Amino acid sequence: MVYARKAAPDCPFQKRFPSQLIRDDVFYMTLAYNEAIDAWHSNEVPIGAVIECEGQVVGKGSNQVESANDPTAHAEMIAITQAANSLEDWRLNKATLFVTKEPCPMCSGAAIMSRLGRLVYAVPDSKMGGLGGAFDVNGYPGMNHTSIIDKGVLHDDCLELIQTFFRLKRESESEGFDKV
Amino acid sequence: MVYARKAAPDCPFQKRFPSQLIRDDVFYMTLAYNEAIDAWHSNEVPIGAVIECEGQVVGKGSNQVESANDPTAHAEMIAITQAANSLEDWRLNKATLFVTKEPCPMCSGAAIMSRLGRLVYAVPDSKMGGLGGAFDVNGYPGMNHTSIIDKGVLHDDCLELIQTFFRLKRESESEGFDKV
Repeated sequence: MVYARKAAPDCPFQKRFPSQLIRDDVFYMTLAYNEAIDAWHSNEVPIGAVIECEGQVVGKGSNQVESANDPTAHAEMIAITQAANSLEDWRLNKATLFVTKEPCPMCSGAAIMSRLGRLVYAVPDSKMGGLGGAFDVNGYPGMNHTSIIDKGVLHDDCLELIQTFFRLKRESESEGFDKV
Repeated sequence: MVYARKAAPDCPFQKRFPSQLIRDDVFYMTLAYNEAIDAWHSNEVPIGAVIECEGQVVGKGSNQVESANDPTAHAEMIAITQAANSLEDWRLNKATLFVTKEPCPMCSGAAIMSRLGRLVYAVPDSKMGGLGGAFDVNGYPGMNHTSIIDKGVLHDDCLELIQTFFRLKRESESEGFDKV
């Protein structure tokens, strides 16, 4: 007997359309939030990322681990690859990455390896966060680069999104699995 | 004036062809060594990786950061993505990754995120290594997975390859850059 994943629970949140005229941290984090909603609709943990460089979005991504069947397909990794391609330079010193949850160890390492200028996350992760939550890849003195790290932008909205997703998933999955 | 990267220095090392009948750690690390030589020929830092599962190679990769213009294109990341695709499962619990140098923070994190069963590296990296060299992602108690880590297989050969590459690059680049 083969069991499939349950479909994504209905998403009670809507994408937002902030003014393009005020391109501050909240603006870019809102775009990352919209990416996270895309992840939800694909039945992925709703995490999204956007990369800004000189006032333009040069990369974006939503978590795709399950749908791409690739453990490296986190939102940040997809956005970094896209930004490097867009800027035609793998060194992202002038870029800022906005992500709805503190990056895991892999993505924290990717921020350093891509020489990212700045990284802003919404929700800290004391269990798996690699930028101060659980440990701090960026603060290790031996690294060949350090990024500026800021946090808390759109915190409550991004936290509510993730927590609601897991709550609805648990309720849904306690009803059993779909048979194929 | 635009400057191009110098071509790769001539590689004085040859690929090796170990017996397919003895599939031990040295066998798989030798295949990773051959991947590192491929990286050299592409003018990349010569690091290679191979993933084995149940006696078969299910993923392999060589460092492609410069040629793919992607800071995430490390040998291990490419091999992990390939293995997940080959096994049709992003969870690599039964797989072993062989890599010629201790993984960086990003790739160490990817080992955990992919739930890799075992990782073997040849050369430790006290500056950037994320599996005990500089710090230890795998040993952090909050992680949701730990891998078995072994090291030192084919150490001298993999170290000589990397050190020779950097020495020849320095000698070559001290002669100036090619103009485009």
